[in-house]
Amino acid sequence: MQIFYAPDISGNEFILDESESRHCVRVLRMRAGTSVNMIDGKGNLFEGVISTADDKACRIEIKRVIHNFEKRPYSLHIGISPLKNTDRFEWFVEKSVEIGIDEITPVICSNTEKKTVKAERMNNIITSAMKQSLKAFRTRLNPPVDFLKFISATHNGMKLIAHCNNGIIRVPLGEVYSPGREAVILIGPEGDFSIDEIKLAIESGFKSIKLGNSRLRSETAGIAACHSIYFLNQ
Amino acid sequence: MQIFYAPDISGNEFILDESESRHCVRVLRMRAGTSVNMIDGKGNLFEGVISTADDKACRIEIKRVIHNFEKRPYSLHIGISPLKNTDRFEWFVEKSVEIGIDEITPVICSNTEKKTVKAERMNNIITSAMKQSLKAFRTRLNPPVDFLKFISATHNGMKLIAHCNNGIIRVPLGEVYSPGREAVILIGPEGDFSIDEIKLAIESGFKSIKLGNSRLRSETAGIAACHSIYFLNQ
Repeated sequence: MQIFYAPDISGNEFILDESESRHCVRVLRMRAGTSVNMIDGKGNLFEGVISTADDKACRIEIKRVIHNFEKRPYSLHIGISPLKNTDRFEWFVEKSVEIGIDEITPVICSNTEKKTVKAERMNNIITSAMKQSLKAFRTRLNPPVDFLKFISATHNGMKLIAHCNNGIIRVPLGEVYSPGREAVILIGPEGDFSIDEIKLAIESGFKSIKLGNSRLRSETAGIAACHSIYFLNQ
Repeated sequence: MQIFYAPDISGNEFILDESESRHCVRVLRMRAGTSVNMIDGKGNLFEGVISTADDKACRIEIKRVIHNFEKRPYSLHIGISPLKNTDRFEWFVEKSVEIGIDEITPVICSNTEKKTVKAERMNNIITSAMKQSLKAFRTRLNPPVDFLKFISATHNGMKLIAHCNNGIIRVPLGEVYSPGREAVILIGPEGDFSIDEIKLAIESGFKSIKLGNSRLRSETAGIAACHSIYFLNQ
């Protein structure tokens, strides 16, 4: 089933833009009567049928709307350092959207080497992962913020910092998190958070956690955190 | 700390081959007295010190051996279809080694489009993920086998098949798996297993499971399965 991302959808008809109309009618050879789905990123799944297979303005009649489609019983925000290798960061974004995440904030830490994120590219990855995994709620990508600003901001729910420093007590994530809760989890860069950063986060109310005993790369730790919260909510 | 993969290590000295010696002495500028670690893929971690920083035959004196280094209390074998996009399969291999896996078998299913795997390239990925995450036990990559051959082979422990077919009862992985057990988990290709394959697997003693409610790509499902078993064993 073809899925379109339609953030501005409203009413009982949706008209694809010129480029999507051409793709739909010329490349996919879709005809009037074909069923398609649309998601708006705000929790709605629209079931529709092509009414006019026009290659410049393909019209879709909306037959049914499902609100709060597969709404998760929890919310998750991951603050993660941008990574030297862009592929690895992109991979984290794609996989966490597939599994389920509400918000991603790139957090600039003292060991962060690359301090930028290509927002447009990341948002395209978010859109395609949403379509791929049929997520009606869009993951929000926030602009990069400094570590100190991130830890001193107001966050709802549990605040957690996952790190590898054996000198600071770390509680397994599964022991501190209760299903259904909102959580914010901090994941550090290659080379981890500095010890000062970890201490400051703890002073700001973040709980020091570990994701297990394996030494994980940053992007793998991000996915492990996201999947752990998902798993605990099953 | 520099880590070397040394499958043939023995005795109380280890000599790096010419290319590694050059890298170690010329590129990394390591000198006599520098501490290094070696893993042999059989569960041993060797702590050593460079005794002669020769750029053709760098000698390392072994000071200590740790047997069964971070041995997992369970074992995991994932049978997964090769994927059209090689990057995605490689990514599964890298991440599952980081998290922890004993055996990977590429399984050729009726919906498998690409039926081969580049064994040498995958083994290089396994080696570098082992070094990265300091795994003393090597993940075994088996040659590709057909689905029917895989399900009829003898497997120790629990046999599980993860699929997306809503028409067949699927139990959440967390409800069937008990920590400490050996497990074999089957993950299908893009387009999933055929219904016949799922039925045949069930007849052969595989339990039908689901990894949650998210629609995951094959490689993400592989990682989710690997991480679920890891998480349940924490």
